[in-house]
Amino acid sequence: MPPHEPGVTQPPDIDPEELRREGLVTPPGTDRVAHDGAGRVELAFTVEDTDPARTAEKKVRVPPGVTVFDSASWNGIAIDSTCGGHGTCHKCKVRLDRTEPVTRHDAKTFSADQLDAGWRLACLVKATSDLKVLVPPLTTRPKAATVGVGRQVILRPAVQKRYVKLAEPTLEDQVTDLDRLLAAITDLEPRADLHVLRRLPKVLREADFKVTAVIVDEELVDVEPGDTTEQRYAIAFDLGTTTVVATLLDLVTGTPVAVASMLNKQQPFGGDVISRISATMLDPLALERLQTAACQTLAQLAAQVCAEGEVDPAHVYEACIAGNATMTALVLGIDPEPLGVAPFIMSTPLPPTVLAEDLQLGLHPRARAVFFPALGAYVGGDIVAGMLASGMDRDKRTRLFIDVGTNCEIVLSDGDRIVSTAAPAGPAFEGGAIRCGMRAADGAIEVIKLDASGEQPVELGVIGDVEPKGLCGSGLVDAVAELVKVGLLDSSGRFVPEDVAKELAPALADRLTMIGQERVFVLHRPTVDASPEESVVLSQRDVRELQFAKAAISTGWTLLLEELGLEHRDIQQVLLAGSFGSYLSAASAVRIGLVPQLPVLRIVAAGNVAGEGAKMALLSVRERAGAQTLLEEVTYVELSDRPEFNDRFVEQLAFSHGG
Amino acid sequence: MPPHEPGVTQPPDIDPEELRREGLVTPPGTDRVAHDGAGRVELAFTVEDTDPARTAEKKVRVPPGVTVFDSASWNGIAIDSTCGGHGTCHKCKVRLDRTEPVTRHDAKTFSADQLDAGWRLACLVKATSDLKVLVPPLTTRPKAATVGVGRQVILRPAVQKRYVKLAEPTLEDQVTDLDRLLAAITDLEPRADLHVLRRLPKVLREADFKVTAVIVDEELVDVEPGDTTEQRYAIAFDLGTTTVVATLLDLVTGTPVAVASMLNKQQPFGGDVISRISATMLDPLALERLQTAACQTLAQLAAQVCAEGEVDPAHVYEACIAGNATMTALVLGIDPEPLGVAPFIMSTPLPPTVLAEDLQLGLHPRARAVFFPALGAYVGGDIVAGMLASGMDRDKRTRLFIDVGTNCEIVLSDGDRIVSTAAPAGPAFEGGAIRCGMRAADGAIEVIKLDASGEQPVELGVIGDVEPKGLCGSGLVDAVAELVKVGLLDSSGRFVPEDVAKELAPALADRLTMIGQERVFVLHRPTVDASPEESVVLSQRDVRELQFAKAAISTGWTLLLEELGLEHRDIQQVLLAGSFGSYLSAASAVRIGLVPQLPVLRIVAAGNVAGEGAKMALLSVRERAGAQTLLEEVTYVELSDRPEFNDRFVEQLAFSHGG
Repeated sequence: MPPHEPGVTQPPDIDPEELRREGLVTPPGTDRVAHDGAGRVELAFTVEDTDPARTAEKKVRVPPGVTVFDSASWNGIAIDSTCGGHGTCHKCKVRLDRTEPVTRHDAKTFSADQLDAGWRLACLVKATSDLKVLVPPLTTRPKAATVGVGRQVILRPAVQKRYVKLAEPTLEDQVTDLDRLLAAITDLEPRADLHVLRRLPKVLREADFKVTAVIVDEELVDVEPGDTTEQRYAIAFDLGTTTVVATLLDLVTGTPVAVASMLNKQQPFGGDVISRISATMLDPLALERLQTAACQTLAQLAAQVCAEGEVDPAHVYEACIAGNATMTALVLGIDPEPLGVAPFIMSTPLPPTVLAEDLQLGLHPRARAVFFPALGAYVGGDIVAGMLASGMDRDKRTRLFIDVGTNCEIVLSDGDRIVSTAAPAGPAFEGGAIRCGMRAADGAIEVIKLDASGEQPVELGVIGDVEPKGLCGSGLVDAVAELVKVGLLDSSGRFVPEDVAKELAPALADRLTMIGQERVFVLHRPTVDASPEESVVLSQRDVRELQFAKAAISTGWTLLLEELGLEHRDIQQVLLAGSFGSYLSAASAVRIGLVPQLPVLRIVAAGNVAGEGAKMALLSVRERAGAQTLLEEVTYVELSDRPEFNDRFVEQLAFSHGG
Repeated sequence: MPPHEPGVTQPPDIDPEELRREGLVTPPGTDRVAHDGAGRVELAFTVEDTDPARTAEKKVRVPPGVTVFDSASWNGIAIDSTCGGHGTCHKCKVRLDRTEPVTRHDAKTFSADQLDAGWRLACLVKATSDLKVLVPPLTTRPKAATVGVGRQVILRPAVQKRYVKLAEPTLEDQVTDLDRLLAAITDLEPRADLHVLRRLPKVLREADFKVTAVIVDEELVDVEPGDTTEQRYAIAFDLGTTTVVATLLDLVTGTPVAVASMLNKQQPFGGDVISRISATMLDPLALERLQTAACQTLAQLAAQVCAEGEVDPAHVYEACIAGNATMTALVLGIDPEPLGVAPFIMSTPLPPTVLAEDLQLGLHPRARAVFFPALGAYVGGDIVAGMLASGMDRDKRTRLFIDVGTNCEIVLSDGDRIVSTAAPAGPAFEGGAIRCGMRAADGAIEVIKLDASGEQPVELGVIGDVEPKGLCGSGLVDAVAELVKVGLLDSSGRFVPEDVAKELAPALADRLTMIGQERVFVLHRPTVDASPEESVVLSQRDVRELQFAKAAISTGWTLLLEELGLEHRDIQQVLLAGSFGSYLSAASAVRIGLVPQLPVLRIVAAGNVAGEGAKMALLSVRERAGAQTLLEEVTYVELSDRPEFNDRFVEQLAFSHGG
């Protein structure tokens, strides 16, 4: 839905001392009493500064087993490092209040006295119980970027470049080309792939042994003549079932260079994941065609952002793809059938990293394409990316994350435990099965205000400021919510009788009419004398569709609240994810019961968090590791086998008039 | 040289108690006083048996840092294991006399009391100083095979299969397909590649969740319906500059199924490595053509051995390729130019493992092709394979390893230190630059006996028992050696004057004649009245060629002896590697000074040790690790920049009459 693209934040280079900031990521420990919730350990950091007056104390809480380096990094605390936490750069020195095992890297880095005093490399110490950590003053000021829901990311991309000037070999110095190169890269220990070895001898000699090594994660993927360190790019893809968004990132600065979006070329196979899975079950060639269509979508966007950003695609060394489980399976060519039929089984929670070339993305020949892990067949990599971008695991508040769509993903965290589920909401929010439903495109009514007695009884917000042609998801929610508010819909979701309507809403009652046997509410007449059939209307059946959709969703979060022993009022924040969430009226969502009955200020549009998560994974290997950790932290709750599901669902069908 | 192929040993399944055997691999410690040479640690094993009377004590010495498991495995001591030393099967339990760090795998395997008592997993303990190790009785009897120069290899191939019957998923059990499969494989923890994930959902369901997992090293490469555990094959390639040999191995039994050899299809580009490297420097397309030619050679042989062995190529999951540095670079498509010009630089000592498909070998689509590491541009993977097969690093004796060829590789070990070098012997041993020289094919004189006064003054051994057509390498050495013996060649390598000849060797003197201005010795006249030009002769210039070749080689081992402070008589064994070495007369080699002046019984033909090393690497991941260790153990000595090289070379030109 291109008109709904959230804006791109321009992340500035920031002072590490400014890393702590207001927003959704609360620096833990300073203004709250640390509580010993199950499954977390507390790390108390003392962050020194060259100016002793600026030394700061920060407490953070992380799942046991996370490294001290990650614990700091995820909470905006900068520690010197160039290798990205592989134990190879020997820079992330910290002093602990406890004796931890000495690794070979520690032994190389510290004297015996220092080891005795508790000095260790932060990336090699796993926090298994509470720990005090002294961080010495930074020797270099790290760059950071603002990404996701106010998340500060300290830049440490998987894609690294090192410019080296090597001594030419002689009979006295017959070190091999590769070892000569690797010896000059002091802070990383990459493996070389065949592609590099094939080019290495010629490139070294043609460039007089002055070359730039390109390293992705732990692989040396290329050697480029001369100094190319400033050309270092990656592309973040939000691979949606409907819309695909690409963001070209400059990894040197952490800033987006260009953004583009388009409809997923898989559309001809069906609008939702089930129809695309069905296609593969009916036609043995469909899987390959769907894969090709997805890859072509990504490739076309990649070409577009590179052209717009005036970046050579050969300088794009990594792509990160956030998509739901079906989109991920299809783009990789993995048989999706078990995702579509009970008991809904994924092939793997951790899709493998592949070559971008395998997907024919047209980037550097050895560029990698990485995927997000998935929690379940219907809580996929896009949601894990969204959790990463919204800091679901790093915030002490009780927060509810809802990504509204045909399949609606719901995540609930009480600051210690995180549970998630999926609710089958059906196509109503995308305009499907709705009489005048349409996508959020030009002509769609997206905002509706009703005034039972005022001068302007119906006020419409229309995308593109053109003649209204139909109703998109947010307009549908508004329409129902406003009709409930003015009393034209009763709590069971039925249009009230004509006489009741005239009494409650005299200015609107004449809009309640019939099409055939069905009652409808006319939202917009193209001409004064247009018939209801020619108008944009909301039908009784449309209301039922929305009721079922919202009941599915509210049953989902109700059961998750029960799972954690919480009540509605415990929720401190509701995040509405995705472009749909950005345009949904919080008041309307509350009124129809799509979200819990809470003050609207607690309901926040989180934007395209999947795409933001993909950007974070490209900007920081630590954040990428955080996405993997989520897989262990989040409990997936399957609703369809819950005996209480149907009871709760029926309870949730009604509209409350309390909002 | 196909007629010279050494026979293939049929390795039997053997009792582990029989693993210790006479031969080139001496079980250390039992009959010798252990000496504390630099750079070795001693492990004293107590190997228990279910019958206490059969408990055995064995001491072995290995480079520091080798694991206890490898130390045992390399010395024929069996320890329970199924994972191949990755710490995952938790079976290789041993008790140490010292407290070693406790890994997480140890903590899972042993009780606190057991850990206190010194129990550890052998594959996770590195021997950094002398250690006593108790090995409990085996629970399963390991299979072993005899490979190489009498080496006993305990079978533990990188290619593993596990047949599993999985529970079908339900709504209560939504574990992903991959995790379900991996959970059923208790002793290995492989990663899955995309190829498997694409097939996995369908194969599992079509095979009713009864499948065989195929694992190569640490990768899950396939899932096959039903139980295919008996179909497990690999191919060992000896990729020679001239001849390529393929051996199809049954990895279940460790036995060779079929062997085939053919000329390297790169021959049209030149007979030796330098001419092939030159080809790539003259023609930008030559590298690709050379690569294709090498791959086609391997593919044709692979098809041939599979056909002969009646094995489906899709059941061949690994190939091991032993070749010199140039052959390895060319088959991988790596620019070989720096190998061919001073200062002779390799791209890498450790060629990467690639997919056999990348080389179009026609095996399983995800089969791996692994290569041997190389010590230098002219002591390549074939020699490392040969060292592995001949146990150069596991034998306490002082041994000299010589692979005679255009480039002659020489390795010397004193039981502690190993040094190696390469000597440019030129083409004489392959019949090049020799007047009547030819390859070791039908019609080549390979054995010559001269009798200065006897009834049959010249006795010839001819390949194929046909009319002699020329002289191959071993015949050349015999010819010169015999002429020196009877006195027709003086110690400077000159044919003696006619009168001296008549006096010393009356029965042979008439064969000394002239062609043009050059003196020649007639070895064979096709007819009684044939002219010297029509006969098979050895010319004065031929003698000079051989003198230069043998001087290059003997200068090599002379300098290596000096490097280790040894003398000729210290050498306890000379191994002549390669097919040429197999057919060379030890007595003649001693007489012309190609090998040190030693009793001929100390000179042993080692056969095709490169191919045997490749087989060992396929049969045992422990042996493969041993090849990597050689890279650290062996010091490569570059001769061409030695100031003393020329002096030594001149000294070595002469023939001694002492033999």
